[in-house]
This record gives sequence, structure tokens and C-alpha cells, in this order.
Amino acid sequence: MMTSLPTRVHIKEEGPREGFQIEKGPISTDQKIRLIDALADTGLDHIQVTSFVHPQKVPGMADAEAVVAGLTPRPGVLYTGLWLNQRGLERVIATGRLHLEGKLTLYASNAFLKRNQNRDPAQQLAAQPELIAMYQAHGIPVRTGFVTAAFGCNFDGDVPVDRVVGLVADMRAIARDHGEDLGLIGLGDTMAWATPERIRHVVGAVQDANPDVALSLHLHDTRGLGLANAYAGLQMGVAHFDAAVAGLGGCPFAAHAGAAGNICTEDFVFMCEEMGIETGVDLEKLIDCAILAEDIVGHPLPGKVKTGGSLAALRARRPGA
Amino acid sequence: MMTSLPTRVHIKEEGPREGFQIEKGPISTDQKIRLIDALADTGLDHIQVTSFVHPQKVPGMADAEAVVAGLTPRPGVLYTGLWLNQRGLERVIATGRLHLEGKLTLYASNAFLKRNQNRDPAQQLAAQPELIAMYQAHGIPVRTGFVTAAFGCNFDGDVPVDRVVGLVADMRAIARDHGEDLGLIGLGDTMAWATPERIRHVVGAVQDANPDVALSLHLHDTRGLGLANAYAGLQMGVAHFDAAVAGLGGCPFAAHAGAAGNICTEDFVFMCEEMGIETGVDLEKLIDCAILAEDIVGHPLPGKVKTGGSLAALRARRPGA
Repeated sequence: MMTSLPTRVHIKEEGPREGFQIEKGPISTDQKIRLIDALADTGLDHIQVTSFVHPQKVPGMADAEAVVAGLTPRPGVLYTGLWLNQRGLERVIATGRLHLEGKLTLYASNAFLKRNQNRDPAQQLAAQPELIAMYQAHGIPVRTGFVTAAFGCNFDGDVPVDRVVGLVADMRAIARDHGEDLGLIGLGDTMAWATPERIRHVVGAVQDANPDVALSLHLHDTRGLGLANAYAGLQMGVAHFDAAVAGLGGCPFAAHAGAAGNICTEDFVFMCEEMGIETGVDLEKLIDCAILAEDIVGHPLPGKVKTGGSLAALRARRPGA
Repeated sequence: MMTSLPTRVHIKEEGPREGFQIEKGPISTDQKIRLIDALADTGLDHIQVTSFVHPQKVPGMADAEAVVAGLTPRPGVLYTGLWLNQRGLERVIATGRLHLEGKLTLYASNAFLKRNQNRDPAQQLAAQPELIAMYQAHGIPVRTGFVTAAFGCNFDGDVPVDRVVGLVADMRAIARDHGEDLGLIGLGDTMAWATPERIRHVVGAVQDANPDVALSLHLHDTRGLGLANAYAGLQMGVAHFDAAVAGLGGCPFAAHAGAAGNICTEDFVFMCEEMGIETGVDLEKLIDCAILAEDIVGHPLPGKVKTGGSLAALRARRPGA
């Protein structure tokens, strides 16, 4: 397989959403807004700011509208929200301040699909046209697809690569049949089963079958391989990554396995920039955001560069410099 | 550059030495012995158990002799100790229980060399024959070399790859001139300046110039790239790695940059085994050691698989299995 690093990566910052969602809190609306505004000032151009989920199910996200109303939109930054159903989408639209993107999601784990959505694979596919119709009714283009648990699942074990390739083909076909075109396909390592070699294998297979789409990776760091997996993705030319500032989204020291969040944004930015891959992000400002995030949640977060430091200051102070 | 993973890796476990050295402690001799004996029971076949350094400089290592006397040697396991000078070596020899290997170490950072050893590069080279003579006087073969700060240095900035290649050539020539042959060359990312691409570049250059020696990597995780760097090393065919159980050797939440330890042994073993690379280590037993290590130091340690869990149990419990 080839090694062909992208020259530029695009990062979707998920810290404020995925991160604060899991925190016991309470985290004040003002603190959330403060972090989001600080993130938007780093050069990050896509920030998922909150979840429009049922306030009784996720009390920490009950202030979704207030968060969106309170942030100071920065030109060039896409602010998005997560929704899981029509009611959520309507709430997002009602804010009038969030970027809307239609997205299809398929589960590669049949057991996880059953558990989360009480559907079998055929029912999952059958449900997509209605979703597309919902987007179309609101004039929202459907451009992205996502495969959940694409690398393995705690409830279903290893996921065959053919199943992932098949699901991507299915979702593209369904989209096309309804006048939509998926240009970006995300692969989620939801439960941290991936290894770098597995990333290369699955990404390679999806690329071979879909040379005309861009891929993105959503990598959880539960077993510590997040950045190694991201590097493997970069080697395959993947240029879109989800990440969470400071590694928000879980405490690595929690006693349950599902605890770790996405790859840490500033660690990933550090790795990319040091390898000559442009991120558009000011690492020093992002480190300040990571320290702020840790301050807000009130416990250690797993990102390392926020304590290890960048190399810029060290290079500047060396005798010969 | 090629991607050619080794089929088997060899791990030198440094947790008990590098890890306990940095802990404020006090950690009892019994606890140290307990961890070492447990590690020897996992299949790890090389464990660096303690440092023979001046007890007033490193009080936590004052019990070096007692640790060695107390462990239960397991057949097939190499137990080694660290020494920095003739007095240390004599103490190691006096234990009568440690594997002895002569090792030459050169600093790739001139500023760090000056700071730590008060030598310039020429003085560093000039000092090596005396070291070889010391080993030879004790009948210890000199088979390994090590380059400190091979990828960059907080005090010296980026380290040119030619300097590393030159130092390896120098140490091999000095060894040869004195009847010794270095078969294993270690490259140390002492201050965590490496990226995966840098690993590939430097390892590749050293390999090209030394096709007849094996390389090992000693990777600190201060900036979170430890396992990504290890993966890059594996891709280059590197089959020898230093590691520390649970990531012992520093607390990632310490306020100073030099705080992080080596790559975490169980996370590395997990990555290798999941990619089909044999380690000879029982991961479940090693996870127990990591939990024990955390227990002993009394604060969270950075390894992730010890909380995230291996995949073996999850595979076993899935419906179809």
C-alpha cells in the first residue's frame, strides 16, 4: 500500500459536544460558550457545539439552544449541532445559527444496531429514504455518510471489511436513487477496535471501491491507539478527521471501557504540523483551549501536548537559534 | 519507503527502573519485587529492574541490591540493571544475579551532552575506549550502542539525521577498533521530538548505512506520539522496543515537560498482537501488572488498555462466538 500523506487536513472539533455530553457536570452554559469561542479563534473551522437530544435523557445538553444563542459566530467557521431525529433537526433549524448538513449513518455492527435502534440490517437500509426525504423537505443537501463501528464492536466482535464496503455502496446507492450524492464517507472506530494495519486495510478497501469520495476518520482512543490509527489514515491519504480538544469525551481513568473520547485535537495538530501537514490551526492557542477545557471539567484530561508542550518555544530558545 | 512489519518484537521492560526512579515514593522494596516477579510471569523476557546510581542522588534507588536479592529469577528472563559508571558496574557485578551487557552511549545533542556530561563531541568519542576497556576487564562483551536524543532535544532543537548516522558509524568503528562488534543500535527519543515520519526518515537512514545491525527504539510519550512512532518503527522493520508497564516513568499531568515515560508496554503489546506481531507476552497478565503498578504508585498512570480492556474477552462473549 502507498504512503501518501495529505498536504492539508480538515478537523471537525467535537470536544464541546462529545466532551461535555459525558461529563457529570454541571458545566455552565457560559463555560461552554467560552470554550467554543476560544476554539473558533484557533483556526479550527468546524466545531460541533452541542447535541439536540432529549433534555431528560441527557440533562447536560438541555442548554443546547442557549449555547448556540450565546456563541459569537466567527466568519469562516462552521458551527454544527448533533441531532438524532426529526425533533432534534427541527430544534437545530430553529436556532438559525447552525450549519446544516444531511448525513446518513449505517451501523456495521448488527448487534449494536439491534441494541441502539432495535433494527436489523434490512430495516436499517429501509429507513434511509425517509431520512433523506426529511432533509429534502428542509432543503438540506445530503452529502455525507457515516459507518458506525466500522472496525469492530464490543457486542459483535470483528467487523468484516466486506461489510463496510457493502454498507458504503448501499448508502451511496440509496442517496443516488433519491437525487443526492455522498461526497464524504466517515468511518467510525466507535469502540476502539482498530489498529493502524486495520485502518490501512479498511480504508484501502473503501477507497478502491470509491475512488471518487473523500474519507474521514472518527477514532476513539480507548485503547491508546488513536494517534497511531490517525497516522495510518494519513498514510492512506485520509484528510478529514474528527477530534476533541484535550481528549474531551471521557476520562481515561474511569472504570468502564467505553470511557475514552476521540483523538485529542492538539496532539493530532502537533503530529500533523510537525510532519509538514497543514491544519490551519494555531497550536499554541489550541493548547490554551485544552488547558481551559481541563479547567472547566475540573479533572485531568488525557491530551499530552498541553502538558508536554509544543516544540516552537524550545526551538526558539535553543542557543543556535 | 517499504512497509515490512516484523513477525516478532522483543520488548525491554523498563517500568521498574525508569518508572520507580521518578516516583516521589517511598515505594517499598517488597512492592518493587512483587511487580518485577509479576512482570517476569507475563512472558516478558528482558526486565530492567533497578538503577545502580548514587543513593544520595536517587534515594528511591538506594535499595537496588535488596531488590535484586529479593526477586525470584525466572528461567529465560534477562534481568538487567542500569549503571552510569565503574562504581555502578561493580555493584551490578557484585549482585551476581544480573545479566551484564556492555553498552556504548553517545549523545546526538551537543547541548545535552555538555549539560549532562560536561563534554564536547570530541571528548565524548575519546571517552569510549576507556569504557570498552572497563567492560573487557570484566569479561563483558560490548554488543549494543545507543544514541540519546536522536530525534531532537529541548536544549539543542532538531537533530540532523546525518549527525545520528555519523554517531552510529563512530561508535561502531570505535568498537571494532577494540575488538568488539555492535549488533544492536538503539535510537532514543529522549525528549519526545519524534514524529512517525521522522522515525521513518532517521531509522531508514541508519538502516541504509548499517544493513547488518538490528535497531531498537526508546520512545518517550511526552507529546502523545509514542505509539504512532512505534508503529512507524514497526513499518520500517524495527523489532526491538523499550517500554514501561502502565506507562510508568512519569505522570502525564505533571506540570513539567519532561514528565512522560516510555511507551506503555501493555498498549504496545495490544497493538502488536492485534496486528499479528508476536510479542511472547500474555496481555491479560500484563494488564494485571499495570493495575498493580498503578496501585503501587498510588496515582493514575497513563496506559489505556488497562482501563479500556483487551479485545479477547469481548470476542469470546459475542453472540456468534
